[in-house]
Amino acid sequence: MKAEFKSYFTKLLGDDAKFDEVHKRAYSYDATRKHFLPDGVLFPKNEKEISEILKFCNENKIIVVPRGAGSGFTGGSLSVNGGVVLALEKHMNKILEIDLENLVAVVQPALINSKLQEELKKHGLFYPPDPASMDFSSIGGNVSENAGGMRAAKYGITKDYVLALRAVLPNGDIIRAGKRTIKDVAGYNLAGILIASEGTLAVITEICLKLMPLPKLKKTALGIFKSVDEAMKAVYTSLAKGVRPVSMEFLDNLSIRAVESKFQKGLPVEAGAILIADVDGNVEQSLDDDLKMLEACFKEAGASEFKIAKDEKEAADIWFARRNCSQSITVYGNLKLNEDVTVPRSKLPALLSGINEISKKYGFKIPCFGHTGDGNVHVNVMVEDKNDEEQVKKGHEAITEIFKLAIKLDGTLSGEHGIGVSKAPFMKLAFSEAEMNIMRAIKNAFDPNNILNPNKMGL
Amino acid sequence: MKAEFKSYFTKLLGDDAKFDEVHKRAYSYDATRKHFLPDGVLFPKNEKEISEILKFCNENKIIVVPRGAGSGFTGGSLSVNGGVVLALEKHMNKILEIDLENLVAVVQPALINSKLQEELKKHGLFYPPDPASMDFSSIGGNVSENAGGMRAAKYGITKDYVLALRAVLPNGDIIRAGKRTIKDVAGYNLAGILIASEGTLAVITEICLKLMPLPKLKKTALGIFKSVDEAMKAVYTSLAKGVRPVSMEFLDNLSIRAVESKFQKGLPVEAGAILIADVDGNVEQSLDDDLKMLEACFKEAGASEFKIAKDEKEAADIWFARRNCSQSITVYGNLKLNEDVTVPRSKLPALLSGINEISKKYGFKIPCFGHTGDGNVHVNVMVEDKNDEEQVKKGHEAITEIFKLAIKLDGTLSGEHGIGVSKAPFMKLAFSEAEMNIMRAIKNAFDPNNILNPNKMGL
Repeated sequence: MKAEFKSYFTKLLGDDAKFDEVHKRAYSYDATRKHFLPDGVLFPKNEKEISEILKFCNENKIIVVPRGAGSGFTGGSLSVNGGVVLALEKHMNKILEIDLENLVAVVQPALINSKLQEELKKHGLFYPPDPASMDFSSIGGNVSENAGGMRAAKYGITKDYVLALRAVLPNGDIIRAGKRTIKDVAGYNLAGILIASEGTLAVITEICLKLMPLPKLKKTALGIFKSVDEAMKAVYTSLAKGVRPVSMEFLDNLSIRAVESKFQKGLPVEAGAILIADVDGNVEQSLDDDLKMLEACFKEAGASEFKIAKDEKEAADIWFARRNCSQSITVYGNLKLNEDVTVPRSKLPALLSGINEISKKYGFKIPCFGHTGDGNVHVNVMVEDKNDEEQVKKGHEAITEIFKLAIKLDGTLSGEHGIGVSKAPFMKLAFSEAEMNIMRAIKNAFDPNNILNPNKMGL
Repeated sequence: MKAEFKSYFTKLLGDDAKFDEVHKRAYSYDATRKHFLPDGVLFPKNEKEISEILKFCNENKIIVVPRGAGSGFTGGSLSVNGGVVLALEKHMNKILEIDLENLVAVVQPALINSKLQEELKKHGLFYPPDPASMDFSSIGGNVSENAGGMRAAKYGITKDYVLALRAVLPNGDIIRAGKRTIKDVAGYNLAGILIASEGTLAVITEICLKLMPLPKLKKTALGIFKSVDEAMKAVYTSLAKGVRPVSMEFLDNLSIRAVESKFQKGLPVEAGAILIADVDGNVEQSLDDDLKMLEACFKEAGASEFKIAKDEKEAADIWFARRNCSQSITVYGNLKLNEDVTVPRSKLPALLSGINEISKKYGFKIPCFGHTGDGNVHVNVMVEDKNDEEQVKKGHEAITEIFKLAIKLDGTLSGEHGIGVSKAPFMKLAFSEAEMNIMRAIKNAFDPNNILNPNKMGL
């Protein structure tokens, strides 16, 4: 990076502009474990500084990569082409306001999701989106990726809770999008296009979120099935009949066995699949009615067992298997190629049986688990030895087939993780040239010099 | 219009291309009662024809104005600069699919909202957005304006239910946006930017909507208050305490008196305001708990009476006042300047007291009613004689002050009706030059020749 650029940043930010190797390395990676060294790391204190940085970078064609917690799975915060990392975590991580009169929270982008949840709990409130990464991912990252989570089956995803944003455009202009109101139809839905834009259109500086009263009661049920097919039918038939579980999570046989082999919890290792469902509400009878309907649907689909947790301890035991899937399946290999395809719920049986075929064809174990209540399955192609290049190549071929299958079933490349760099090569499988063109035109409208997080999302 | 253009359209559409005066007049107006004659009216049969029309119009710089039911309040479907009206109502008004397995409906844009509701009811389902115009407004129009409705306080608005769209871009390209899934984070949120874009970015040809199981029970309550201020406090305190009414509707004294003078229903004409709240659910106790909490909050805010409807007949009687507000307030004048400003709920007392000041200052009666549960108030400046130019001018000045007040209170120009042409002059009150510029850049990205519904929304 040119000395004059460095001195501009240092003049503006003082000690919050870093160009040493340690900082550059520390901000060179994310949860993809890929590394790309940036040319510098900037820690802006406020929106005004971000505006000045972007204005300067736009004029001088310096690449800027915004970064929250760096916990993304697809490389959204990686500086793949160098430039400066705009690290928001140091100064822009606060809750600015919890407005109890209007049930909204106003937060800075690098606030960690679970910190907000903790604070809200004190007021009997919650913010529904709860990605698995909630203890370390930031709300700004959640908005940029349109994060989902366990509760999406009932409560929806991040975009359903963002009422308003403040953001800085690549040219340095500061904009507000949306209002602290449920209804606002004046002008284009700018917040709508910034959500899920993976930091490629603007730097989000403030987020206004809709909150919900925390339900007083929650119950957990477990269904055990002989086959994946039965479990998948149980998912969509129970939801179609009007049960509204908070979450309906799934583990296949490989996932169950993996957790059991690691933790010896007495899980049903002969089961083809298990489903874990939470229901919530304020009235006991309402939860009991839901569970009764759920039991009927599960049994009709072929469940061999249906169990309701008697207390929080039993509920935690049931959830233990789900929570420890991801780390346990490494028993099948030291390279996990994990993707988060999503299909309409009625297509889950076809998705899972197709994955089974792909598993046989390529000879990989492919444990699957995830948020079946909203059609979102975490598919894990396990490569036994990551140093075996041939195997790794075949693993990626298997992943490509899985994407093609999901899209054939009217599903999507990603339910939660976004595209970033990891999934960019697959965009052409899912989108037509016309669709790619209009996305490129939108990118160009916001960022004509292509300085903000360029070369992401296959654009 | 050039003869060669007419003959192209006639060749493409046959008898569905109309250039006679009767058709041009019939499609020259909407609910604003403003008239702008188009140069022709086209009734495309399908997406392919729409694509060909747009391609041709784009190449020949012919203006195209898409139109659903023409029931908009702000002129979104008016051909203010001539061109062809793309009238979807004739051929593109069908339910394509009700997918009971995934709880989604796929519909064409000109389908009337209530027709969908009727069909869904047979399956024990509903589509929550229910604008007052639901018996004659189209789903495509609802999406283009991001319509709200009575149930928005609990269930949200149109954008919360649109899972996916198909649309034709101004250059004729056909795109899909979103999937039949709750989660889809691949690529930009194109559906998000098309919603509320008032037919200026693309012609929507197919809409995939999320459905909900119809709650089994509903109850209606009425609160009578001495003052508007008390009623407004009751609104936001009850919602802040966790009551989740389906709707919480409001009538001020002028609105109550207007309905009473027209229908003699024995309404409380001395009351400062009334609130009407519906609660719903599947379990009696849950509704009763909500009503109990509501009563406590209403009484604490100063309600002199709280009444729960014993049966559907009583509920209908309570709702009668609200449903007949709009037509009744004409007792105060033959020109109604009605706007639908929205503020954060806690700002409702300040909004209503500010409107009271404006009423005194200008000497107009300004009856207010509406969806206070989501902060959306229908404000009606009543001009006694529409032929008195001086009065009409003053009426518009009063409206401008009301907009300024709403924006000062962190509210919006429009909660439901959109901007179109009617509110275009006020965009500068609400948006900065930077915000207008990025909206213009988005318009330009979609429609570089500015052929699709140009000169709307103040862009």
